[in-house]
Amino acid sequence: SNNFFLLAGPCAIEGEEMAMRIAEKAVAITDKLQIPYVFKGSFKKANRSRIDSFTGIGDEKALKILRKVSETFNVPTVTDIHEISDAEMAAEYVDVLQIPAFLVRQTDLVVAAANTGKTINLKKGQFMSPESMQHAVQKVLDCGNEQAVITDRGTMFGYQDMIVDFRGIPTMKQYAPVVLDVTHSLQQPNQSSGVTGGRPEMIGTIAKAGIAAGVNGLFMETHFDPANAKSDGANMLHLDLLENLLNQLIAIRQTINNF
Amino acid sequence: SNNFFLLAGPCAIEGEEMAMRIAEKAVAITDKLQIPYVFKGSFKKANRSRIDSFTGIGDEKALKILRKVSETFNVPTVTDIHEISDAEMAAEYVDVLQIPAFLVRQTDLVVAAANTGKTINLKKGQFMSPESMQHAVQKVLDCGNEQAVITDRGTMFGYQDMIVDFRGIPTMKQYAPVVLDVTHSLQQPNQSSGVTGGRPEMIGTIAKAGIAAGVNGLFMETHFDPANAKSDGANMLHLDLLENLLNQLIAIRQTINNF
Amino acid sequence: SNNFFLLAGPCAIEGEEMAMRIAEKAVAITDKLQIPYVFKGSFKKANRSRIDSFTGIGDEKALKILRKVSETFNVPTVTDIHEISDAEMAAEYVDVLQIPAFLVRQTDLVVAAANTGKTINLKKGQFMSPESMQHAVQKVLDCGNEQAVITDRGTMFGYQDMIVDFRGIPTMKQYAPVVLDVTHSLQQPNQSSGVTGGRPEMIGTIAKAGIAAGVNGLFMETHFDPANAKSDGANMLHLDLLENLLNQLIAIRQTINNF
Amino acid sequence: SNNFFLLAGPCAIEGEEMAMRIAEKAVAITDKLQIPYVFKGSFKKANRSRIDSFTGIGDEKALKILRKVSETFNVPTVTDIHEISDAEMAAEYVDVLQIPAFLVRQTDLVVAAANTGKTINLKKGQFMSPESMQHAVQKVLDCGNEQAVITDRGTMFGYQDMIVDFRGIPTMKQYAPVVLDVTHSLQQPNQSSGVTGGRPEMIGTIAKAGIAAGVNGLFMETHFDPANAKSDGANMLHLDLLENLLNQLIAIRQTINNF
Repeated sequence: SNNFFLLAGPCAIEGEEMAMRIAEKAVAITDKLQIPYVFKGSFKKANRSRIDSFTGIGDEKALKILRKVSETFNVPTVTDIHEISDAEMAAEYVDVLQIPAFLVRQTDLVVAAANTGKTINLKKGQFMSPESMQHAVQKVLDCGNEQAVITDRGTMFGYQDMIVDFRGIPTMKQYAPVVLDVTHSLQQPNQSSGVTGGRPEMIGTIAKAGIAAGVNGLFMETHFDPANAKSDGANMLHLDLLENLLNQLIAIRQTINNF
Repeated sequence: SNNFFLLAGPCAIEGEEMAMRIAEKAVAITDKLQIPYVFKGSFKKANRSRIDSFTGIGDEKALKILRKVSETFNVPTVTDIHEISDAEMAAEYVDVLQIPAFLVRQTDLVVAAANTGKTINLKKGQFMSPESMQHAVQKVLDCGNEQAVITDRGTMFGYQDMIVDFRGIPTMKQYAPVVLDVTHSLQQPNQSSGVTGGRPEMIGTIAKAGIAAGVNGLFMETHFDPANAKSDGANMLHLDLLENLLNQLIAIRQTINNF
Repeated sequence: SNNFFLLAGPCAIEGEEMAMRIAEKAVAITDKLQIPYVFKGSFKKANRSRIDSFTGIGDEKALKILRKVSETFNVPTVTDIHEISDAEMAAEYVDVLQIPAFLVRQTDLVVAAANTGKTINLKKGQFMSPESMQHAVQKVLDCGNEQAVITDRGTMFGYQDMIVDFRGIPTMKQYAPVVLDVTHSLQQPNQSSGVTGGRPEMIGTIAKAGIAAGVNGLFMETHFDPANAKSDGANMLHLDLLENLLNQLIAIRQTINNF
Repeated sequence: SNNFFLLAGPCAIEGEEMAMRIAEKAVAITDKLQIPYVFKGSFKKANRSRIDSFTGIGDEKALKILRKVSETFNVPTVTDIHEISDAEMAAEYVDVLQIPAFLVRQTDLVVAAANTGKTINLKKGQFMSPESMQHAVQKVLDCGNEQAVITDRGTMFGYQDMIVDFRGIPTMKQYAPVVLDVTHSLQQPNQSSGVTGGRPEMIGTIAKAGIAAGVNGLFMETHFDPANAKSDGANMLHLDLLENLLNQLIAIRQTINNF
């Protein structure tokens, strides 16, 4: 369909019911709109600011929910890994292994992921230039794995802000398909509370600009109740807003497909 | 026509022939595409890195060329001013007075410009947040002049790079119509040569993203021979590329007009 | 004495009494400590965020106060200029003309200042690299004026913060004597109030680091009542703290003089 | 002795001979100067830009060399860990476990390190504010380990540069003893070569400023042949320059000890 693809779901797998509920709605919408869809959910939150932040319901329990989502709705799934030993474990349950932005310089982790043969979603470090992602992709290729994807989730701008550098989109498309993470790139880190803030009212602006700039896919965290999500509530898209946003994005995509 | 408007022209008025040649082509294209057009040209380059950089052909001589462009092609014109005394002088020749980004915090200059009653194009300082432009607009309004426009020309990112913060577009539209300067925002300042660099290959990417993000207008410097322009050659759009780019941008604009 | 020199005084000349009171105390302290001293005061505040900010008591009135300070206490004075026409006017009253950071790229202003033959204090733009200040100094030299000084007042870091890049000190000393402005470099611009904030509790830290890094001079704004100063109150040093701080800085300076 | 302490050594343990040679000289100098000294060496380089960068000689082999240095010269040692499983392994050989800057947000890694009971050196993320390091220290304290140290290795400034924010020193001293890493904070990342650059000529400037600003310790990589070191050669201090630099730093420290 020459459409963009979508990685979307909750930040963390908080339980089976919430995962299935989000997946069901996202699948219904993306089926209708003919958007290739990958269900996203973290089985563990390993890099929280504070030790008392929610970190997960148990690794295998969460991974089994991801598998159930995949089997029930016949969609691929993506989750992020943090340790070398996570790579093989997660690869048994999901289709795409994601390397978090903070960890994308950890060669051993990238290599362990690449060696599973799964698609590898490399998040651009908030401290990395678009050009430097070429080296991250090369590490995957050097393992004989040609399924690398790059996701931009914004770049540090001062201590408490992030900016998306749209020049990075054509730059990184030279190395691999490029996804724009429209919810994390609106985070506002290093807040005095120790809880990352965000600007979810800007999701539509960044997503439209990203599609116009030619991204291959979009990544967004979505929840039916962002205010009560156990993590990243400050910058998720409410699930009820997803269909209308995707409709607009498809219209822009169809326009630029003609160029 | 509910289209975006366009401020475009050479960086500096180098002479009558080049100004007329650029204006003629830009007018022909924008007439055909029904894009409201303002011819842009600087009558003086006051903030060059090096003392031996080109600064102009003479103030009145350049301003008279701007007037001739206006009269010949029946288009409004815009030029930038640098001193309080420039305001009244330039106001006799052009329709829009532009406050350069470095100078937008100079209250006396903004007030002098506003008091001419002309439309005032306030360039966002490379060191200013989108939110802080509210105060610049307010200075114009406080003079009883309601014709303020804001132009974003990028934000400093490290010493040698600029980034466009697309979150600023909806933010600044709360204060005034917003223009995206797609050529200056691709500058790369503080180069060791003392001559600002640029990335003109990214003009299309930034322009498309800007239209999708909802800007009211675009600003771009264009020349039939950028490599030999006397200033900003590193980031101007070649005039031969203008029509095709505008066609694409109109298609995106028509798409988002339906949202 | 091989000591550092000091440019200090209030932000703005608010009146004769306050100027004389600050000068008297600063002169007494610096005489005692054998620190070459220049009284600093702005005769006009031209670049305020908001139109309702205090801008001055009248240009000539303020300049005459600067002259009176100079004659009464036998000290040189420095003030900042914002327009070409300010250069000659201010040069009749003060010894050092200062080019504000936002304006240091305005060639005509730098040239007008340099042509007065006075010492020129070039503030590094918040958006400029240390290396690029070489071009600003060169503009002064090209006028036949060899009395250029560079003052670093911090570099933009995100929208609401500034950082001093200490690598710039040895870099810029290759071009001219280098002064560290320890109060402005602690500003926090673009605050939502429209009034610049600051972190005056860090003045000692930055000043000590600057002396250790080899600056030739220091610049600081000081007032006997910062909370009620008409501008920059958020980051001035209380006059009562000046002597103790200078004592510490002299001790560090004497130490590094032995290296 | 109320002196600062020093963490220094090569970037990577390339072999026993080089480690012993560097240790011998560093121990001799710091003994003479009464500087508490910790030998630093990485047993593995896990976060290189490129897959073909040097990563180590074998984990246990390198750790045994660290133990030999410790036993031979009777000095504590520090090494950095990258995976949870590294914590216990490294803790058998060294006295201080260091959490790399990219990884300091990984809660599980910090907790695994803290639970060994060793001193934990937390490197401030290049993307973190000084204030946010409070949460990292708290994670160590929450494990019942009160031996946390914070090391500042600079903050991202644009894509290809780092700056030390000296305001962070007094800020972070509220949470734990603060070390300034004077060699890594001079790195220039994201270079087009894929190999991080540096500015080693600035080591003295940053070190002196750090001591004057009140750091508790310094961290620096040093080698008798930086140009041929297998990693970080671009920003190490030549071992022959160490004694003279330390002499200067002690003089500044003794001066500020009197304040």
